[in-house]
Amino acid sequence: MQTSYDVVVIGGGIIGSAIAYYLAKNQVEVAVLEESRIGLKATSAAAGMLGAHSEYEGYGKDFFNFARYSQALYTELKDELYGLSGIDIGCKKGGILKLAFSEHDKKALRAILTLPTVKWLEANEVRNLEPDVSPKIIGAAYIEEDISVMPYRVCQAFLKGAQVYGASIFEHTNVLKIQKQLDTFQIDTTVGMFKAKRVVIAAGVWSNPFFQQLGVEQQITPVKGECIAVEGRSTFLKHTIFHDKYYIVPRNNGELVIGATMEENDWSEHVSLDGMETLIQKAKELFPGIGQMKMNAAWSGLRPQTFDQKPFIGFHPHDEAILFATGHYRNGILLAPATGEMIASFILNRTVKKEWVESFQINRPNRR
Amino acid sequence: MQTSYDVVVIGGGIIGSAIAYYLAKNQVEVAVLEESRIGLKATSAAAGMLGAHSEYEGYGKDFFNFARYSQALYTELKDELYGLSGIDIGCKKGGILKLAFSEHDKKALRAILTLPTVKWLEANEVRNLEPDVSPKIIGAAYIEEDISVMPYRVCQAFLKGAQVYGASIFEHTNVLKIQKQLDTFQIDTTVGMFKAKRVVIAAGVWSNPFFQQLGVEQQITPVKGECIAVEGRSTFLKHTIFHDKYYIVPRNNGELVIGATMEENDWSEHVSLDGMETLIQKAKELFPGIGQMKMNAAWSGLRPQTFDQKPFIGFHPHDEAILFATGHYRNGILLAPATGEMIASFILNRTVKKEWVESFQINRPNRR
Amino acid sequence: MQTSYDVVVIGGGIIGSAIAYYLAKNQVEVAVLEESRIGLKATSAAAGMLGAHSEYEGYGKDFFNFARYSQALYTELKDELYGLSGIDIGCKKGGILKLAFSEHDKKALRAILTLPTVKWLEANEVRNLEPDVSPKIIGAAYIEEDISVMPYRVCQAFLKGAQVYGASIFEHTNVLKIQKQLDTFQIDTTVGMFKAKRVVIAAGVWSNPFFQQLGVEQQITPVKGECIAVEGRSTFLKHTIFHDKYYIVPRNNGELVIGATMEENDWSEHVSLDGMETLIQKAKELFPGIGQMKMNAAWSGLRPQTFDQKPFIGFHPHDEAILFATGHYRNGILLAPATGEMIASFILNRTVKKEWVESFQINRPNRR
Amino acid sequence: MQTSYDVVVIGGGIIGSAIAYYLAKNQVEVAVLEESRIGLKATSAAAGMLGAHSEYEGYGKDFFNFARYSQALYTELKDELYGLSGIDIGCKKGGILKLAFSEHDKKALRAILTLPTVKWLEANEVRNLEPDVSPKIIGAAYIEEDISVMPYRVCQAFLKGAQVYGASIFEHTNVLKIQKQLDTFQIDTTVGMFKAKRVVIAAGVWSNPFFQQLGVEQQITPVKGECIAVEGRSTFLKHTIFHDKYYIVPRNNGELVIGATMEENDWSEHVSLDGMETLIQKAKELFPGIGQMKMNAAWSGLRPQTFDQKPFIGFHPHDEAILFATGHYRNGILLAPATGEMIASFILNRTVKKEWVESFQINRPNRR
Repeated sequence: MQTSYDVVVIGGGIIGSAIAYYLAKNQVEVAVLEESRIGLKATSAAAGMLGAHSEYEGYGKDFFNFARYSQALYTELKDELYGLSGIDIGCKKGGILKLAFSEHDKKALRAILTLPTVKWLEANEVRNLEPDVSPKIIGAAYIEEDISVMPYRVCQAFLKGAQVYGASIFEHTNVLKIQKQLDTFQIDTTVGMFKAKRVVIAAGVWSNPFFQQLGVEQQITPVKGECIAVEGRSTFLKHTIFHDKYYIVPRNNGELVIGATMEENDWSEHVSLDGMETLIQKAKELFPGIGQMKMNAAWSGLRPQTFDQKPFIGFHPHDEAILFATGHYRNGILLAPATGEMIASFILNRTVKKEWVESFQINRPNRR
Repeated sequence: MQTSYDVVVIGGGIIGSAIAYYLAKNQVEVAVLEESRIGLKATSAAAGMLGAHSEYEGYGKDFFNFARYSQALYTELKDELYGLSGIDIGCKKGGILKLAFSEHDKKALRAILTLPTVKWLEANEVRNLEPDVSPKIIGAAYIEEDISVMPYRVCQAFLKGAQVYGASIFEHTNVLKIQKQLDTFQIDTTVGMFKAKRVVIAAGVWSNPFFQQLGVEQQITPVKGECIAVEGRSTFLKHTIFHDKYYIVPRNNGELVIGATMEENDWSEHVSLDGMETLIQKAKELFPGIGQMKMNAAWSGLRPQTFDQKPFIGFHPHDEAILFATGHYRNGILLAPATGEMIASFILNRTVKKEWVESFQINRPNRR
Repeated sequence: MQTSYDVVVIGGGIIGSAIAYYLAKNQVEVAVLEESRIGLKATSAAAGMLGAHSEYEGYGKDFFNFARYSQALYTELKDELYGLSGIDIGCKKGGILKLAFSEHDKKALRAILTLPTVKWLEANEVRNLEPDVSPKIIGAAYIEEDISVMPYRVCQAFLKGAQVYGASIFEHTNVLKIQKQLDTFQIDTTVGMFKAKRVVIAAGVWSNPFFQQLGVEQQITPVKGECIAVEGRSTFLKHTIFHDKYYIVPRNNGELVIGATMEENDWSEHVSLDGMETLIQKAKELFPGIGQMKMNAAWSGLRPQTFDQKPFIGFHPHDEAILFATGHYRNGILLAPATGEMIASFILNRTVKKEWVESFQINRPNRR
Repeated sequence: MQTSYDVVVIGGGIIGSAIAYYLAKNQVEVAVLEESRIGLKATSAAAGMLGAHSEYEGYGKDFFNFARYSQALYTELKDELYGLSGIDIGCKKGGILKLAFSEHDKKALRAILTLPTVKWLEANEVRNLEPDVSPKIIGAAYIEEDISVMPYRVCQAFLKGAQVYGASIFEHTNVLKIQKQLDTFQIDTTVGMFKAKRVVIAAGVWSNPFFQQLGVEQQITPVKGECIAVEGRSTFLKHTIFHDKYYIVPRNNGELVIGATMEENDWSEHVSLDGMETLIQKAKELFPGIGQMKMNAAWSGLRPQTFDQKPFIGFHPHDEAILFATGHYRNGILLAPATGEMIASFILNRTVKKEWVESFQINRPNRR
């Protein structure tokens, strides 16, 4: 077993997989170390809505541009990854309807309605698109360009693609300790020692021990999210509908996914009855007919949240051989391609937009 | 393949299985024909609470005595079936607490509180038994003797026991038509023809076509019920708690089962979001801490309801070679042993209590 | 609930769904009656390989042309159904490699090698396409055009599409009896009576009772097939590989599906250990590295086999108000679109190719 | 949240749970830290056969006595744990038949046949007990006293019992580092810091990093084991049958469990096709009719193996505030009660048999 690599990526979720893909595609010798199985945690838990616009408010222009850029990458990745891996990442068009139930809701949409890609629909126009949406709405912001993907498939496709380009994947490989000796990292794991010239921490909510070992004063807190998938014959939905942080996403397979709860600092990984109840009540508000539908599955995941809810993407403040790509909060699926490309650019000494470097560097000032 | 039997039982749920057991044990050559797999429908869906007392009101003295008798049979069956089949039917003691949240609730319990096996507990006494029960209760009727079993296990154990005594089980065997020629029934199925001297209809909610074919003017309507199983570390429950037709049953494996919704004339067999919501809300009323628990599973089943909610157990009005044992509504698990024994007694020409014959005969008058 | 229709289709598998789609699209008022849930039986069990060429031998030119025609329909249906239903049917290109391990195998491929769409590859050429295929092969027939789909998705998409065009779907609706009164069929079911001007029997292996009731002397026998799905990181497969009635199909989601056993006249619907063993041994012969892969799932289904292994598609010999579309054996997924279109053409009085009418009519001579 | 305890146990499998139970029962303030969910790994993977005699050969007298003692503890624990937790641990009598297919096999059984609790049965005697066992056997060693339990249930019941006595359980709590400051251990986890006067390492195959951190030169290697559960109507088994390290265990719920493969140093946690094939072939040798049975489930786990295949139970060589209880290899379920009691005795300063202390201390000489 080869155990020496140019780059070792710690974490085989969608972020680590995207990084491995962009590195391997550029002839960098890369290995991914994953504690359990790839894509099993927050990646699988995500609904896969690529709502670049949904996150417009609050995070600022640079974040929004980065999100839009990442969303656009998916369009080319779709075919590129299918060709390499035979895996269809389940891109689904249709757009997002951000519903307004009141004037207050409508006001809250003002900011995104200034964007050229977003338009206001009156209630009857919304019902033309989606006849079974709640009769109580007064209208919706329609973001036609937003798409959805199947997150676990994306993760798989990135990794298969990376493998085609020569990357190695090690599952069930728990990293215990990272030590640097001269210019080489020694990465001690449950299954043996790996060596690397560079390491990338992409471990989501489980990144904290690495911050500690590597002397970075940051903390990621989990925000648990629960989802339900349902199936039904009588009604159906073509667009993602969204209100007050909850949404219903129609999947490629005919299922609707209802998401997601927000449990701050909850490390438990199970679906609770309280979570189910909240999701059901909210889903019925948006789409009343959903109450009769068949429950197919329910699951949860831990979103990795940073102090300002924006990810850490970039170099260790004192050692450019260490990189971070973690803390993507609600936006891991959306931002994975751009994050993978950005980390690869850092490693390959390519140019990265200055605003993005500054927005996402781990030692950015805490202005909150 | 042998295809001629003394008795053919149509339906491999808990009722058909109990009948096969009591017949085979008495040297009657019996075959069970099951459309899908044994015990998969209403049997598996049941929570397994043997609440003889819970059904005291409304159904009268004869029903109650029959229920109590059947409950008592379980005590001896437990070891008998284990010895024959190696299957543990999961008998669990602990009793049932019928909670009262108001004087009105308390009044509704007056009837069962007259029974010597039932006693009233004040709120603080209830909390001594179950510290985490709702603080809003004013007391509870405590039925210490009521037990619970694992319904699918009971069904399996009856059938394995029946097999040890020589019975034959045919799964995936859909009965198409029953015709009588001289003294022999020809039972046409998807997998071939069976012959029998007697037939017993034990097909639950799917008995209607047989009523029709056999010239009986009765109708069974489905009452769909949904359940949820949860698991949790922090709190636990020793007794079944019950209020307003909803209950929480602690299982032998540490799970709590929340049951059950009541959807009249709903033939769909899926768990709906509305059903889940109702169960969660009700469970939190009875046992507030349950909201934090982990959802393990959810399922549903169709209870077979007759015009007066009491089962049909007995002979066809015009042909003693045809027997019925169906329509057990909410009480199939509870009544299975006594039903099996009663049908065997009819076939073996043994005495059956006159009140029970009259209470359960299919052509009893409709006094509703 | 509306209960009168122009056409009632009995059976909600992929065949019944395709029929409903083509009828509804042509403004025919159609209802589908499904005993359990749509697409749950043989449809879900199929691997989804559309091997028009694989079935070339033995069934003759007309069958082959029909199969090729149906395969071609999928190409247009893919987008049409996605647009209507939002469901992606998972079309996957890549082609099929029919492996030859010996000169004898190679000879058996002679017939299909005469087709312009099939070419012979030497062992090293096969290994260029699929490096991990067995080193023991001497070559393969390469059918580049054959594709695969996800069968359950196709069934869902047909039905959602049919619903958009006005069709009605009734699940958990078991047909008990079909009677004709004057020009109207009365279809008695577990959930009530339906009326129709025409009925189509599309019930797969469960069609026998309808043959009997409708006076047709035919019999469908089940041929049980079992499949396994596996997943793995280290190797992967781009083309379906096929040998001696067994195959490995790469799916859109990165899984490989191994199929399928052939158990004549086995009505059981479970996966047996014997079946698993056979599939594993065969799969390792074709693709040795598969032994290390992770088993994800295993399932089985009953293929409906007619006397000559060709489907019954067409009118009842004595009543043009009754149509049959059943007995598709190993080819239900492949033939569903052409079957649906053909039945719709019969009902709409459109022209149907004479050879196809004759090949598939239920009272064709038994030349076996 | 309380975070200071007398004892912190690292690992919530059956060993850690047993330790917590015996400590809490003796008024020691104890917390269990579990990385994922309790009992999910090797514990759940075990078949639950308590084959004290099966392990007689090779490990010596002291090991055997310890195993017999632990087996005996189960008899009293059964009711004790049920009373506390309401969980039935699924004790099943029946005994084990160690089959001999040849004189060579019979010779290998000589050692255990010297034990008073073991007797030789000729082939016909074996068939009287188990009619469907392989016709090729020449006899069997019958160990009537050996029982089986349901391992996950045991683990749950220990922990619920421990909770009743005041213990705390923390799931999803990954221990990162253990440091000692004066007399207090600081245990850094993904969810915060814990403090304890003593720590017990009970982390099975994941104990290696703790050996390293705590300065113990030992290594545990995984031996992956895979199992299959099957169900069937036609035949059944009352006794566990065993041959050549493979076995078939009848469970309380009517299932048969086939175990187990032995993959040295395989950290993967999935069931492979190779593993399935081996188990099916072996099971058919022992019990030919099993080939027709229905596969219900398959799973795997990692047995923690020490240099001499005996567990480490006892103090750290240089610090009596650190204890180890890990490396139980194939015998974790069997040895859990005695291990729990022994660790509690160490902590409570009670006497422990000198032979057991010496046999299981972590710095015992390597005589292999």
